[in-house]
Amino acid sequence: MDSDDPRIPLLGHRRGNRLRRVAGKLCNLESWKRRLPITIWLPNYSLECLFRDAIAGITVGLTSIPQGIAYAMVAGLPPQVGLYSSIFPGFVYVFLGSCKDVTVGPTAILAALLAKYVAYSQDFAYLASFLSGCIILLLGVLQLGFLLDFISKPVISGFTTAAALQISASQLKSLFCIAGSSGDTFIHALVNFFKNIKTAQLWDSVLGASSIVFLLLLKRLTLGNSLEKVCQYVVRARNALLVFAASILAYFLHRHGSTPFTLTGKIEGGLPHFGLPPFSTVVNNQTLSFTDMVAVFGPEGLVIPLVAILESIAIAKAFEGGAVDAGQELVALGACGVLGAAARCMPATGSFTRTALNHACGVLTPAGSFFKACLVLLAVTLLADAFYFIPRAALAGIIMVAMMSIIDFSIVRILWMNSKCELGVWAATVCVGACAGLELGIAAGAGADLLRALARAARPLLRASTHVSINNTTVRVVLPARLQWCGGARAARRLRALAASAPLLLLDATHLHHIDLNVAEEIISVILDLEKQGHKIILWNFNAKHQQLFEQLNPTMRERFYTGISIEQEVLGMEPTGQAIIPETISTNL
Amino acid sequence: MDSDDPRIPLLGHRRGNRLRRVAGKLCNLESWKRRLPITIWLPNYSLECLFRDAIAGITVGLTSIPQGIAYAMVAGLPPQVGLYSSIFPGFVYVFLGSCKDVTVGPTAILAALLAKYVAYSQDFAYLASFLSGCIILLLGVLQLGFLLDFISKPVISGFTTAAALQISASQLKSLFCIAGSSGDTFIHALVNFFKNIKTAQLWDSVLGASSIVFLLLLKRLTLGNSLEKVCQYVVRARNALLVFAASILAYFLHRHGSTPFTLTGKIEGGLPHFGLPPFSTVVNNQTLSFTDMVAVFGPEGLVIPLVAILESIAIAKAFEGGAVDAGQELVALGACGVLGAAARCMPATGSFTRTALNHACGVLTPAGSFFKACLVLLAVTLLADAFYFIPRAALAGIIMVAMMSIIDFSIVRILWMNSKCELGVWAATVCVGACAGLELGIAAGAGADLLRALARAARPLLRASTHVSINNTTVRVVLPARLQWCGGARAARRLRALAASAPLLLLDATHLHHIDLNVAEEIISVILDLEKQGHKIILWNFNAKHQQLFEQLNPTMRERFYTGISIEQEVLGMEPTGQAIIPETISTNL
Repeated sequence: MDSDDPRIPLLGHRRGNRLRRVAGKLCNLESWKRRLPITIWLPNYSLECLFRDAIAGITVGLTSIPQGIAYAMVAGLPPQVGLYSSIFPGFVYVFLGSCKDVTVGPTAILAALLAKYVAYSQDFAYLASFLSGCIILLLGVLQLGFLLDFISKPVISGFTTAAALQISASQLKSLFCIAGSSGDTFIHALVNFFKNIKTAQLWDSVLGASSIVFLLLLKRLTLGNSLEKVCQYVVRARNALLVFAASILAYFLHRHGSTPFTLTGKIEGGLPHFGLPPFSTVVNNQTLSFTDMVAVFGPEGLVIPLVAILESIAIAKAFEGGAVDAGQELVALGACGVLGAAARCMPATGSFTRTALNHACGVLTPAGSFFKACLVLLAVTLLADAFYFIPRAALAGIIMVAMMSIIDFSIVRILWMNSKCELGVWAATVCVGACAGLELGIAAGAGADLLRALARAARPLLRASTHVSINNTTVRVVLPARLQWCGGARAARRLRALAASAPLLLLDATHLHHIDLNVAEEIISVILDLEKQGHKIILWNFNAKHQQLFEQLNPTMRERFYTGISIEQEVLGMEPTGQAIIPETISTNL
Repeated sequence: MDSDDPRIPLLGHRRGNRLRRVAGKLCNLESWKRRLPITIWLPNYSLECLFRDAIAGITVGLTSIPQGIAYAMVAGLPPQVGLYSSIFPGFVYVFLGSCKDVTVGPTAILAALLAKYVAYSQDFAYLASFLSGCIILLLGVLQLGFLLDFISKPVISGFTTAAALQISASQLKSLFCIAGSSGDTFIHALVNFFKNIKTAQLWDSVLGASSIVFLLLLKRLTLGNSLEKVCQYVVRARNALLVFAASILAYFLHRHGSTPFTLTGKIEGGLPHFGLPPFSTVVNNQTLSFTDMVAVFGPEGLVIPLVAILESIAIAKAFEGGAVDAGQELVALGACGVLGAAARCMPATGSFTRTALNHACGVLTPAGSFFKACLVLLAVTLLADAFYFIPRAALAGIIMVAMMSIIDFSIVRILWMNSKCELGVWAATVCVGACAGLELGIAAGAGADLLRALARAARPLLRASTHVSINNTTVRVVLPARLQWCGGARAARRLRALAASAPLLLLDATHLHHIDLNVAEEIISVILDLEKQGHKIILWNFNAKHQQLFEQLNPTMRERFYTGISIEQEVLGMEPTGQAIIPETISTNL
């Protein structure tokens, strides 16, 4: 019943179980079906599903088009790459995805992470998609998703906030159409903005500002649920509407000989050139081999698959609850990356805004992705010429509003009240991420978490109580489940301090599960010291393994071990009717 | 009484106490006296002390001379530097040292760490002494000695073993007088040895081998306590005896025109040139500034003060028990380094072999160091010419025997039986240390320890018990004292599994001290899921802070909190006489 009980060594048993479980899975049709979820939902597909999935897919598609173009521009890629990244991963997800709501496509954060590599060559974007896809697939197949548990919530939240700040700041350039670079950190982007603010273009600024106001107003409307259905669809397609209206405006002004806005410009429509991802590229007339390209990514390149997984799993959990098959989601995401790379896609992952939209439209199966992908495919093949007129300031407005919804300061209040340490981790991630780069922000946050774990391990909690009887005063100290190396010094200090108040010290190891070597040594040294000062020490309920360890370190320890509940008679020479020094707690220990 | 009790927020209180304590110390003559321990022991100094300290000091001095010369050669420094490093830090320790047994001087491990810097210029040795002295002094003054608790016993033991292996292997060159370099890692040294084994010199090899046999035999003798006193002193001065005998032999052979052994050669005796430590140096006709020199040390240079502290504190604890004033020892050691650098010393620290000898000779106060330093001072000023004839093979023999006593494989058996993880840390330290360098070995071991702490934090131990009553079956899960971010996923999984067996789940937070944000979120998500499945959840004995957190994350949590011991009546609708679902444990929780 209680497999975590320290008293029952279950490891071997567990391992055997695990092997049997894996073998069972391999021989089971059901488990293979779960690896290809379309085989589960397609047989039961109904007309109602078709209708609702189509509505949701088309609504999401209308958002995917402007966002795809915008995020491609964030990464510094041609606009159609953003659209391809909505299409092909979308098709793959229909077959492999297990969450009906999740919509896979380019995201602003991945685009921002990609920008510095794309500055060398576009090919890095496709290789990033392929490589991160391979890594994610591997993690999924090997069931290593649990590694992500080591990235804490404050780090994820801090990273998201820093990324949103950086992306927003970098859009100031397009929003006001100012000169200079957009900057590759938040600080850098802000400095550039204020340096070049005098070069701002009036009409771009007006269009950008009114885009933001328009989107925020329509977004507010979604909050009221009393809207009519048609009105709701208008609200949900607000990004597409904005882009449509702005493009029409730009087109008519263009026909009358005036181009007040900076436009997206020529888009190369049609299908991409399918083929293997680029395993070599040319930068400044120098050919970079595969290993050179990997060296350009470096270890910080691992942040791309990491962020892709974090975004996707977080979204899946948010919309599907605890029942997400994380392993299958990783497999699906990895396949999207690997196959997407063959169709010249940038890295794609679950997008929060579009997934929320999908959910709000009442999607019923992953087929929603199919309709979305079809709509975007139609757009990129038929409407590519029309995209010429999309004003960049409107796209910047869309990005900025999307980023505003990502920035999350509410966590600050909760952490302030519950855990200042976690708040420190969050602040470290945001500050380093905003000032020195997003990858460094994650590293700083993870490092701070490590320090936090160490600091905790160094401060074991020893609970103590004093028991007074006729003959004796006893201090009982309950050792915690784990005494790790760095906690030894503090544990020893505390034992010395506690023992000062009574002649008899009882070390209760009922809950002790693991003790590191040096902690055992320090406790023995405390025991010997205290006994020299005339104290009596009882080692109570130590299990066989710990008894053996203590005896190996000091053979005289043997005389101090006691177990069971009759300690008051055996050790203390008290009458059985006297007040037991051990409260009943122990007899009922679980 | 119980300041670690999670129920009592004592932090502010403690901090206030601490300030008061520090202020109190600053105004207290006693605490100033403890910073200059000579003021405590000198007033009570007796004739017996004088006699015993002198005997011990002279015996230790006789070992210090050959070891000093030998360790200077390990570092690649002129022999007299090793002697100076026994003298001047020894004088400083008389004033500041708080442990009567500890003898400060050059050690083999510090010398081995120093060798690669000395290869550039001797000045690095003096600067290393100064800088590491400053760091140690700072740690001592700021009471930061607790930082060392984060280096675990397996790492220290593994590092010592790797260092001893490397130093022994590097002495093979001198022992057999073969050609080639001595190598800067264990593997490198072994490879060099086997490559050049054919260049071994017959008589050096014979002298080296017989030195080792001689020392080992005499060392065995110390085991028998029945020896007469005079005989004991002979045994204790065995290093000096060996060097004396070998030098006499070499001298007579030399006078008869034969030099079969490689000799130490000319030693520049007398006092060193006192002055500031070298803040710049010349390497290959290039002048290196102070910052250049610090850059040569790099971050791995921090290993020198680290090892100096570890050696010294470990030795002090081993010989003085738990009552060591670690802060004062750091101050003394730091002062030895800083002042020693002005007298052209290499870094010095507590030496295990000489401290053990000091202890065995019955030293009574740190004045023993004074007599030792005086003897070595006499030797370096009067006997420098005689040192010319010391055969290098005899010195190599002394080093190898000293290293054999350091290598500790007994820990392997203990760790194998108690903790395979710790054994892994030990093995990682030894292997990386022996193959890739000692500094990297420490880094690998510390890294492995970090992973170990993380892995533990990711596996919180939830104790569970089932309580059956007439109306209900309840699973009670006791939350541990700390639930850290990486343990959230596992805790949630386990709660789901445990809840499966009963309709009522009681989460007992009596011992819960800290819960990370994401763990609280995951527990809430489990609760909501389980309730959808028809389970009832009771959150029991959550403290105000945790209640607030849960309510902030999900306001409906409020209805699930219960406290106290009357839960069986209030919640479960059971008759008071029915079997309580909460055993008495809880009413007596400490």
